[in-house]
Amino acid sequence: MADDKKYAIGFDLGGTKMLSAVVNRDNEILEKSKIKTKAQDGVETVYSRIVKNIHQVLEHNNLSKEDIGGIGIAVPGPIDPMEGVILDTPNLAFKNFPIKKKLEADVGIPVFLENDVNAGLYGEFIAGAAKGYNHVVGVFPGTGIGGALILNGGLYRGAGGNAGEFGHIIINTDGPLCGCGRWGCVEAHASKSAMNRETMVLASKGALTGCLGEFGTDIKKYKSSFYAAAVEENNQDVIRIIKRSARFLGVAIANAVNLLNPELIVLGGGLVEKLGEMYVSEVEASMHEHAMPDLVDKVEIHEASLGDDAVFYGAANLVWDELFLLRKK
Amino acid sequence: MADDKKYAIGFDLGGTKMLSAVVNRDNEILEKSKIKTKAQDGVETVYSRIVKNIHQVLEHNNLSKEDIGGIGIAVPGPIDPMEGVILDTPNLAFKNFPIKKKLEADVGIPVFLENDVNAGLYGEFIAGAAKGYNHVVGVFPGTGIGGALILNGGLYRGAGGNAGEFGHIIINTDGPLCGCGRWGCVEAHASKSAMNRETMVLASKGALTGCLGEFGTDIKKYKSSFYAAAVEENNQDVIRIIKRSARFLGVAIANAVNLLNPELIVLGGGLVEKLGEMYVSEVEASMHEHAMPDLVDKVEIHEASLGDDAVFYGAANLVWDELFLLRKK
Repeated sequence: MADDKKYAIGFDLGGTKMLSAVVNRDNEILEKSKIKTKAQDGVETVYSRIVKNIHQVLEHNNLSKEDIGGIGIAVPGPIDPMEGVILDTPNLAFKNFPIKKKLEADVGIPVFLENDVNAGLYGEFIAGAAKGYNHVVGVFPGTGIGGALILNGGLYRGAGGNAGEFGHIIINTDGPLCGCGRWGCVEAHASKSAMNRETMVLASKGALTGCLGEFGTDIKKYKSSFYAAAVEENNQDVIRIIKRSARFLGVAIANAVNLLNPELIVLGGGLVEKLGEMYVSEVEASMHEHAMPDLVDKVEIHEASLGDDAVFYGAANLVWDELFLLRKK
Repeated sequence: MADDKKYAIGFDLGGTKMLSAVVNRDNEILEKSKIKTKAQDGVETVYSRIVKNIHQVLEHNNLSKEDIGGIGIAVPGPIDPMEGVILDTPNLAFKNFPIKKKLEADVGIPVFLENDVNAGLYGEFIAGAAKGYNHVVGVFPGTGIGGALILNGGLYRGAGGNAGEFGHIIINTDGPLCGCGRWGCVEAHASKSAMNRETMVLASKGALTGCLGEFGTDIKKYKSSFYAAAVEENNQDVIRIIKRSARFLGVAIANAVNLLNPELIVLGGGLVEKLGEMYVSEVEASMHEHAMPDLVDKVEIHEASLGDDAVFYGAANLVWDELFLLRKK
């Protein structure tokens, strides 16, 4: 039955914006749309904006719900993928929200739920930086550090659907406090938040000169663009912070290499996009230094290539994957 | 063609002894045999003893080579599983040895090669402590720390066939020197070799009292049975060393839990067999302390249950798995 469906909808539900797209079986995008999430207006408002967006997308493309194989929804937070329940979204207030059941009732199309990091790596696997690779570790350093795995040519979810908590790999048992409440996670060493804690030391003693001085001492202003500006200004103090964090990230990636023997690491997210080669080369050098030679020698590192499109693209393509899995049952 | 084969041979090629068994499709063992490896006599002698053993096993059971689906050989060291080449065996002197090709020519039965840790966990998965679980991390602390993975209901090998290098997960970037040449691997914190380094401090200052004094200061005498004796003697100094190493092991296991979201950890090997519950409970407590609650809450820990049989049993069963995979191609 599912085989006659020609299109899938991918939906990237973010904290500030929602991106969606209709994709056909040849991975061509019919239409992309971008609307504000309006998370501050509450869960019901956000949900009704999702429903409205889906109806609009169908209408714009003269499609009926019968044309659509499914809607893949990617959300920032832990989920129950089997039941289709959003367990928690710190930036969106969805908590134990049965979006699959609700949305299937409201729009009459099968719904599949995934977290956004998994969906993003899956997008890169289908059409981007990981295309053609069967064993891939995806690492996305930002405010936190997201992770996802392609193993044996498919998205690896683990027993409960939440594999890939890369950010909480402990690389120093007595390391700094992490947002998760434990000590020494790679996220506490190498995320943007971790870098900010060190940059704040520089800011406090007035070592941020030139245009960097304008960022002040409000930690919220230290985004990836701040670090790109510091590299541009050739601020050696900040560059040392960036390189040190990249090297810590390389240690955790080496751990994943030793455990999983992948052929490719995909690095994505804001820091990677803004800092590029100077950052990635440090990560790569550290990965080689800290992993077993037999396992790391053939490992490539690619920067993610689909940008913001990766998540909805992966979410849409998971629809075909899920339908395939359902047929096999 | 392969479906009419009734038996498989599992072969556990160890540094001091070789264990082999004939197993039928119902996982019943027809015959086990145990002979000395005689590694000191050189690679060719060891190889000819393998060939001789296989011929003897067939003869004892009135089997011809046509009855055997394959021989699964498990070796202690890195391999190329696709080509069937033993890359290296520190304790056996096999180096770039094409055992599959050679043995298939000499005995006329298909040969499949696996490392012994993978084979051991696969044995536990087929018939022991991991039976019925689809996502399993196997950890075997001893002189080193071996690891293996069952993911999505099958042995996970990675891109090059050498996944599961659990011992070289780095848990402290400035930790002690590891045998691999890097610093801070869990093996340098929690293997028997690592414990021995600390116990030597006690021995040197004469703190090993009672029957422990008999072990002297020769590090080679500190085997798992020494640590069991120390627990028996209630030597608090040695018990602190044991518990601390168990807690470090729990950190690396927590890292694997965060990354892979498994449902089961299997702990095996000499230390676990000799120390049992007092050791395992420390590992478990540390794992819970250092992993994300959502991922670790449902994780069970089992002690390996097949003992020395696990490896040849797993090797034999991999024959059916490999034949199945070959049929699918």
